[in-house]
Amino acid sequence: MKIYDWFNGPYPARVRIALAEKGLLPKIEFIPVNLWTGEHKKPEFLAINYSGTLPVLELSDGTRIAECTAITQYLDSLVGEPTLTGETPVEKGLIHMMTKRAEIEFLDAVSTYFHHATPGLGPEVELYQNAEWGGRMRDKAIRGMRYFDNLLKDQPFVAGDRFSMADIAVLGGMIFASLVQLPVPDECAALRAWHARMQERPSVQTWRAMVERGVA
Amino acid sequence: MKIYDWFNGPYPARVRIALAEKGLLPKIEFIPVNLWTGEHKKPEFLAINYSGTLPVLELSDGTRIAECTAITQYLDSLVGEPTLTGETPVEKGLIHMMTKRAEIEFLDAVSTYFHHATPGLGPEVELYQNAEWGGRMRDKAIRGMRYFDNLLKDQPFVAGDRFSMADIAVLGGMIFASLVQLPVPDECAALRAWHARMQERPSVQTWRAMVERGVA
Repeated sequence: MKIYDWFNGPYPARVRIALAEKGLLPKIEFIPVNLWTGEHKKPEFLAINYSGTLPVLELSDGTRIAECTAITQYLDSLVGEPTLTGETPVEKGLIHMMTKRAEIEFLDAVSTYFHHATPGLGPEVELYQNAEWGGRMRDKAIRGMRYFDNLLKDQPFVAGDRFSMADIAVLGGMIFASLVQLPVPDECAALRAWHARMQERPSVQTWRAMVERGVA
Repeated sequence: MKIYDWFNGPYPARVRIALAEKGLLPKIEFIPVNLWTGEHKKPEFLAINYSGTLPVLELSDGTRIAECTAITQYLDSLVGEPTLTGETPVEKGLIHMMTKRAEIEFLDAVSTYFHHATPGLGPEVELYQNAEWGGRMRDKAIRGMRYFDNLLKDQPFVAGDRFSMADIAVLGGMIFASLVQLPVPDECAALRAWHARMQERPSVQTWRAMVERGVA
């Protein structure tokens, strides 16, 4: 299998961590798509993924799956253990809900802040910016951190009692927030404690080592 | 099971159509949440769904699942046939991808246009509007229609050879576009033909009849 991504991108991180959790990293060939030169917005890549986003999974028969949740759902259906998307109907529903919530309330909001209210990927890539919208999204992301902090006071993981795709989505938000120097509010002790526990997971350590190696 | 929603909302439509496909409508008690008075943004409802969106599914034990994809994933895992989220890993991946693509490129874009570049739900509900962003999202939605039109020239359904959650998500976009009088470009014949076929499905006819009845 091939993955089109960029080594330290926050969305790519979600799939790399999922791959590490599933023990599938040795089966992947990574194809770098340089975000900083806007390679993901050029016609060649838009033919691979209409939405112009990373990562994209490509199977040996040429089938392409974009969107982190969709890729994770595919990988999780391919290899059973450990489950990232749940086993019972309720688990599946709650994990998908919390993954989407992590996106809209945190990760996507940080991304929009970055692309619209900071220099983002630079003037040659960021052809349209709406700074006011970007600022709103920064505020939304900070509210999102407080929401997840509050949630994690009462449960060990984002979707309940066990690690799932939803934790990886919040991790994506934390990774992006760190890249754009958007600090976690001081009082968010539960979010910080959860984040510290996440750093102890082998999958997260493997991801971090890959980032430190850079583009292979 | 309870569903908090509003009878003619485009996102609620996605879950009502999924429920009709699964034969689960008789098991549902609908709780109306009035969008036009902003009931979904008031503290009582935000305690039910932090994101302040409809619909929300509530199980008999009080568990709540928000987000259309998550609710559909739950319902589809509960009752096997007909499948809306796929059976093989590849089907699941592609259906989740195309559902998300329908959201970001079409349905969510129409929604942002409505809430930001039109009077939306009125001045008492739309407390912040960014008309420029709304206009960009209108343009994005129209590009999205052209994308799905192009896709449907080569395949009968949004995610491939059979009806799925992804078709329902594009239907949500068509429903919202119709409500806000955003016309499908004349040349989008494949999208129009697919839409006409969708109107023949019993689930879509059941949904339409429920809308015509209004709030029960």
